[in-house]
Amino acid sequence: MTMQVHRWDALAAADRRRILARAQQNIADDVETVRPVVEDVRRRGDAALVEYTRRFDGADVPMDGIRVTTAEFDAAADSLDEDLREALDYAIENVRRFHRAQVRHAAETVQVRPGIIASERHTPIDAVGLYVPSGRGSFPSMMYMLAVPAVLAGVPTIAVTTPPRADGTVDPAVLYAASRCGIDRVYRVGGAQAIAALAWGTATIPAVRKVVGPGSSYVAAAKRLVADSIDVGLPAGPSESMIVADESADPWRVALDLMIEAEHGSDSSALLVTAAPALVEAVTGAVEELLAEVPEPRHTFLTDVFSRYGGAILTGDDEESITVANEFAPEHLLVHTRDPHATASSIRNASEVLIGPHTAFSLANYATGPNAVLPTGGWARSFGPVSVRDFQKASSVIEVTESGYREMRDHVIRLADHEGFYTHAAALRRRDDRRG
Amino acid sequence: MTMQVHRWDALAAADRRRILARAQQNIADDVETVRPVVEDVRRRGDAALVEYTRRFDGADVPMDGIRVTTAEFDAAADSLDEDLREALDYAIENVRRFHRAQVRHAAETVQVRPGIIASERHTPIDAVGLYVPSGRGSFPSMMYMLAVPAVLAGVPTIAVTTPPRADGTVDPAVLYAASRCGIDRVYRVGGAQAIAALAWGTATIPAVRKVVGPGSSYVAAAKRLVADSIDVGLPAGPSESMIVADESADPWRVALDLMIEAEHGSDSSALLVTAAPALVEAVTGAVEELLAEVPEPRHTFLTDVFSRYGGAILTGDDEESITVANEFAPEHLLVHTRDPHATASSIRNASEVLIGPHTAFSLANYATGPNAVLPTGGWARSFGPVSVRDFQKASSVIEVTESGYREMRDHVIRLADHEGFYTHAAALRRRDDRRG
Repeated sequence: MTMQVHRWDALAAADRRRILARAQQNIADDVETVRPVVEDVRRRGDAALVEYTRRFDGADVPMDGIRVTTAEFDAAADSLDEDLREALDYAIENVRRFHRAQVRHAAETVQVRPGIIASERHTPIDAVGLYVPSGRGSFPSMMYMLAVPAVLAGVPTIAVTTPPRADGTVDPAVLYAASRCGIDRVYRVGGAQAIAALAWGTATIPAVRKVVGPGSSYVAAAKRLVADSIDVGLPAGPSESMIVADESADPWRVALDLMIEAEHGSDSSALLVTAAPALVEAVTGAVEELLAEVPEPRHTFLTDVFSRYGGAILTGDDEESITVANEFAPEHLLVHTRDPHATASSIRNASEVLIGPHTAFSLANYATGPNAVLPTGGWARSFGPVSVRDFQKASSVIEVTESGYREMRDHVIRLADHEGFYTHAAALRRRDDRRG
Repeated sequence: MTMQVHRWDALAAADRRRILARAQQNIADDVETVRPVVEDVRRRGDAALVEYTRRFDGADVPMDGIRVTTAEFDAAADSLDEDLREALDYAIENVRRFHRAQVRHAAETVQVRPGIIASERHTPIDAVGLYVPSGRGSFPSMMYMLAVPAVLAGVPTIAVTTPPRADGTVDPAVLYAASRCGIDRVYRVGGAQAIAALAWGTATIPAVRKVVGPGSSYVAAAKRLVADSIDVGLPAGPSESMIVADESADPWRVALDLMIEAEHGSDSSALLVTAAPALVEAVTGAVEELLAEVPEPRHTFLTDVFSRYGGAILTGDDEESITVANEFAPEHLLVHTRDPHATASSIRNASEVLIGPHTAFSLANYATGPNAVLPTGGWARSFGPVSVRDFQKASSVIEVTESGYREMRDHVIRLADHEGFYTHAAALRRRDDRRG
C-alpha cells in the first residue's frame, strides 16, 4: 500500500501534530554550510561568484559573462518552438491580467477631521532581486510569476539570478519569459552565492532591498544570513497540497491531482482529506494503477514521497475535513465537493483554494493568473501569495492645517504628558512662542 | 556645540555610510541572553512567567493573576481624569477613521479569460499577539495603534501583553484604551518572556500566529528566536526622525520638532537636512536655548543623544536634500519647505511624511490617524507602517470551468513537459480517461 490512511478521530495528539507539521525544513545545518560562501561573496564579489558557479553548477562562467547579453535574449526568442512560445505568451498574459488588479494607483486620501488630511501612498521598492530556481529542469514559470508583479509594481531595478546549466547557458525559455515580462537584467548565478550577491552587490550585480523567490534549502539558509540587511520575503519551502473531497468526488481526478505535488521534491506532501471511506478506497486503487504506469526512476521516487508525506485522512464528517484543512493551512488546496463554493468559503487558512473538478493544480501552477509562488509549511496562516504588494511599500502622508493643529493640540499634550514625553509636549506648548 | 553639522559634499563615503547607518541595534548578544528565558517559558509556561516577571519587572504576579480582570478594566475607566479619557477617545477615533479605509471587504474577482475566474480573498489571521511596551512611563498610544487595525481586520483572538508596573498593576490608561478598542485579553507580562508565551502559548496565554509591536532589544532578540515558528512582523528598532527644510523654514519650529525624537531613547536619531546654512545656524541656536531650559537629568540625556545621533546635514541644494532623505529612508520625515507637497512627492523612502509647519511629529505620534508603529533602521525601503493588512492574509480563489479547462489544457501540458513535470502533465492528459 502506497497510500497511508489515517483515521483522524483515532489519531493521538502527537500523530496529528506530526501530520500537520509535514516535512519541516531544518536549515540550521545548511546555514553553517553556506555561511563561508555568503561571506566570501561579500568580500570578493564577482570573483567568488565565478568560483562557486564552477564548483556547484559545474559551469565555467567568466566574470564578464555573468550577465546574460542582449544577443542571448534575441537568440532565445528565435530558438523556441512556436508552441512553447505561445504557451508562455498565454500564461504571462493571464498572470498579468490577474495581478493588474493588485496595482494601487493614487493614494487614498482620508479627511480624518477638518484640517487633518492623511493618505496612504504606495511606492515601488527601489531595487529587487528575483531568484528563479532550477531543478531537474528549468522553470520559466517561476520567471514570469515573479517578474510580472515586480514589473507591474514599477520597481526601477529588477535583478534576476538563476543557476546556469552545465554549459554555462540559461534555458532560452527562461530568457524568453524574462524579456516578455520586460526584464533585461538576468545573471547566471544561483544558490547561496546568488542571494549574497543580491544582498550586498558585486561589480556586476546590483545590491537590492528585497529578494523574492523560492529555492533550495541552501537558498533558504542564505536568506536567513542576509535577513538583517535586506527583506527576504515570504517563507517558501517544500511544496504541499491538500484535497478536500466528499463522496461526490471523481476518484480518478482526485488521484491524478493528488499525485502531482509529490513530484516537486522528496519532502513534498500530498494529502486527501475526506469523510468518505469509499472515496479513499477508490482513490487508493487509482493511485496504485497510475503509479504502476510511471517509468523508473520516477516510479520509485514518487512511491517513496507518497509513503512518507502522502496519504489520506479519514474524518468523521465534512465539517471535520474543513477543520483539518484550516489546521494544516496548505499551500495548495483543491476542493472536490458537491458544493465547492460553500466548502471554499469555510476555508480560512490556505494560500490558494481551487474550486471544482476542472481546476487541476497543474493549471494554477502555470496559467490561471494568480501567483504560484506561495507560502508553505503552515505560513499560509499569516502570509499570502506573492503579489504586486510584495514589490511596493506604503508610506503615510499627513498634513495638518493650522486649524486642525489648534483642535488636536491639547489632546496630544495630555497624551504626551501622560507618557512622560517632555519634548513631545514642548514642541506643541512652545510652538507659537516666537517666529524665526 | 550640541549639534554636529556635516557638509554632505565634504563627507567621505565611510562617513556618509556611518550617518546613514544610524544606531544599528546589534542584538546578537541579546539573543544569547534571552535564549534561556525563551526556552524556559516554552517548557514551564505560566510558572516561568511568574518567575521572570518577579526578576525583570520586580512585580509579584501570581499565575492566576496574569490576565487582567474585568473588574480592573471597569475600575480603570473610572479612575482616569476626564481630560485624559477625552484625549484617548479623540485619538482612537482618528486612528479608526484612517485605518477603516484599509479594510478590504469583498474579494476582487477577475475574469482572467472566459471560464477562468480568480479572486483574491483577504481573511483575518486566526490569532495575533500585540506587544505594548513600557518605558519610563506606559504607552496607551501603542495600545490603540496596535489594537485598532487588529480589531478592524476581524482577528478573532487578540492577546495583548504588556509589562506590569512594580506593584503588579497595568496603567489604567492602557486598559482604558484597550477596552475602547474592543480588547479584553490583556496579560501583565513583558519582555522576552511575553514573546515566548505568545509564540508557544501557556495555560493562560493563547499561542498566536503573529506578534506585532515594538519593544526593547530583548523583545527584538526574542522575536528572532521564535521567527521560525510565528510571523514577527515589521522590524522596529530605535526611533529616528529627519527634517528636510529650505530657507523658508521657521527655525524655532524646526528646533522644537528636531528635539522630540531624541527623548525616545539613547540610540534615537534626529537629523536636519538642508541646503540653507543660515537655517542651520538659527536652528542650532534655538536648540541650545531650548536644551538649556530642560531640567536634569533629561538635559544631560538629550544633550548626549543629540551629540551622538543628532545634527544637521548641509547639502548643496534642495535636490540633494531629497537624495539624502531617500538614502536614509527615515521612520519619520517632516517637510518644512516652501512647497512641501512638491518636496513630499519626491520622497520615495520614508514610513511617514509630514507636510508643513503645523504637522509636528508629536501630532502624528498620537492622534492624526495613521499608524505610529513604523519600520526603522532603513526598513522603510521595503516595509510600511503597521496597517490592517498586517492582520490579514490573502488567498487566491480560482475556478476553471470545463470550457476554460479545454482552452488552457494544451498550453499547460507544454509548459509542464518543458519543466520536466510528468505527473503535472499527466493530470491533464489523463483527466478524461475515465469517470470514477
